[in-house]
Amino acid sequence: MSTRTNRQVLLNAHPVGFPVDTDFKMVETPAPEPGDGELLIRTIYQSLDPYMRGRMNPGLSYTAGVSLGEVMGAGTVGQVVASRHDRFAEGDFVLSSNGWQEYAVSDGRGVRKLDPAAAPISTAVGVLGMPGMTAYAGLLEVGELKDGDNVVVSAASGAVGAVVGQIAKIKGHRVVGVAGVQKKCDYVTGELGFDACVSHRSDTLADDLQVACPDGIDLYFENVGGKVFEAVLPLLNDFARMPVCGRIANYNMTSLPEGPNEVPRLMGLVLVKRLRIRGFIVYDHVHLQDDFLRDVGGWIGSGQLKYREDIVEGIENAVGAFQGLLRGENFGKLLVRVSDDPTSRA
Amino acid sequence: MSTRTNRQVLLNAHPVGFPVDTDFKMVETPAPEPGDGELLIRTIYQSLDPYMRGRMNPGLSYTAGVSLGEVMGAGTVGQVVASRHDRFAEGDFVLSSNGWQEYAVSDGRGVRKLDPAAAPISTAVGVLGMPGMTAYAGLLEVGELKDGDNVVVSAASGAVGAVVGQIAKIKGHRVVGVAGVQKKCDYVTGELGFDACVSHRSDTLADDLQVACPDGIDLYFENVGGKVFEAVLPLLNDFARMPVCGRIANYNMTSLPEGPNEVPRLMGLVLVKRLRIRGFIVYDHVHLQDDFLRDVGGWIGSGQLKYREDIVEGIENAVGAFQGLLRGENFGKLLVRVSDDPTSRA
Repeated sequence: MSTRTNRQVLLNAHPVGFPVDTDFKMVETPAPEPGDGELLIRTIYQSLDPYMRGRMNPGLSYTAGVSLGEVMGAGTVGQVVASRHDRFAEGDFVLSSNGWQEYAVSDGRGVRKLDPAAAPISTAVGVLGMPGMTAYAGLLEVGELKDGDNVVVSAASGAVGAVVGQIAKIKGHRVVGVAGVQKKCDYVTGELGFDACVSHRSDTLADDLQVACPDGIDLYFENVGGKVFEAVLPLLNDFARMPVCGRIANYNMTSLPEGPNEVPRLMGLVLVKRLRIRGFIVYDHVHLQDDFLRDVGGWIGSGQLKYREDIVEGIENAVGAFQGLLRGENFGKLLVRVSDDPTSRA
Repeated sequence: MSTRTNRQVLLNAHPVGFPVDTDFKMVETPAPEPGDGELLIRTIYQSLDPYMRGRMNPGLSYTAGVSLGEVMGAGTVGQVVASRHDRFAEGDFVLSSNGWQEYAVSDGRGVRKLDPAAAPISTAVGVLGMPGMTAYAGLLEVGELKDGDNVVVSAASGAVGAVVGQIAKIKGHRVVGVAGVQKKCDYVTGELGFDACVSHRSDTLADDLQVACPDGIDLYFENVGGKVFEAVLPLLNDFARMPVCGRIANYNMTSLPEGPNEVPRLMGLVLVKRLRIRGFIVYDHVHLQDDFLRDVGGWIGSGQLKYREDIVEGIENAVGAFQGLLRGENFGKLLVRVSDDPTSRA
């Protein structure tokens, strides 16, 4: 029998509006033993991403919801601690989707080996993982980035937004970010090289964005919804494209905003400006995976593309970190370090 | 000097809401004389189309607005009555954009000769003209019609909608129309061969549409906006496409509807269902003109594609006919017969 204890975070209640502590429950169970053809993985990094809020709802989302009493889902980077599987050996580093817990058994499906010499293993759930791929597919395929496009991206210092803007810069575009606090805006322009960044916390957001976009907006990468979306609309040029990746400002809404109903105005703009608004999720674009790893991996290697991680220590802090993510408190790709990273140079 | 009198309909005031008679003014002027390199055209058919409502506004539209005191614009089919132009001879039938008037002089730019033996000349502003081309480009290029798509089209008996639905039927799709009165619905299913048609005048529109679309909607061709748009939204399947061609239900709105603001709900659907909403106008798709004429011309010739015209006699009835168009009173492509059609077999 295993002597390992497995701390797990379960969904305890479907959040109504902003998720509160009691919507989750931490339990301790014995870590499972791998059966024949299985492996046991110790979680090192657990990803926290805005899409998880949708999975906590009982209703429709594009991923199946988490049931009450179930372990919250998440992409994870871990190490194999025991293997009865041909393809994996003890000590291997792997990417999988083990969720908010310290250990999980797997039959190997959907588990990918990581080479710590090629890139820091944490990047497999970040810039070289789902968020980076989301940026790549959303900008290039869904957004149909074209020469000369003036690009705006919201949540610009976040895991997706930072990659969107940097790819657009590498491809020669003028790029404006929208972020929260000043230090994020400074990072976006100073470190990431965006041409400008405006704060959605400013009372003059609409004016600030207009000043930052003297030639209007040809491609708006939508991560947030809400007042940023509203500030963007009047600045969209004819034929502008809007890949809709997320709308974090609305995830915790319990009722629709007061009227008037702005849908007719929005659809009027769609018609007159011949806009293209298109929702997407990264899993529909897996055919780009090789291109993505080649391009983004290359840009990271050459120093053209930077990334920043915001690492929270300990699974007991996952809920608080997720709440912070929804409030925009993280600065860079948010991860929980669930256990020691033996590859870390620190 | 010409002895011909030219009756013209001028924009007298920018309509506020529904256009009233006094927003227009009929004047009589002497018909102009063609100068060197010019031709004089007598209007036979003048097109009336929903997009014209937008041109009456002082604000933004995708075509330049009509100024007060200016002749209202329109596509026209006419006959050359005098020519000092190399390319045109007296008696030629031509397509041009002479607007709401009986005569106009042209330098030949944008004027296209018509062959009355190839197709009834009136079709040059209808099924073989701008409305037909709008349907063709909107369905196939903008809407990206795919095998197996369940198609819904609003204003289904109209100049655009009837062609949209018939092309989709020819290509093997299940097609549901939305129209107004029962005789239009009967025409759409009985004559045009749509699989079903529901009335937007029904109190049970949303339920009726759901029953008519047991497999949901993969492509919604948007001509109307308003409550039809609202009834369609919950039925859209993942990856559904919505080419936005028009929104006649909103053209005369003077203020936005009461709240709540449904935009967040709409954008939530866009994200979760990965919808593509795309506005378009036909002039952005002229590269399809040859394909359109070959395909739609061929289908008309083979009897696979039918069309219906609603012809109003006399330019003095143009304003009333246009008002009727906005109320959905026309039945088929609306035209004004401004003067005798010598090619007519009647």
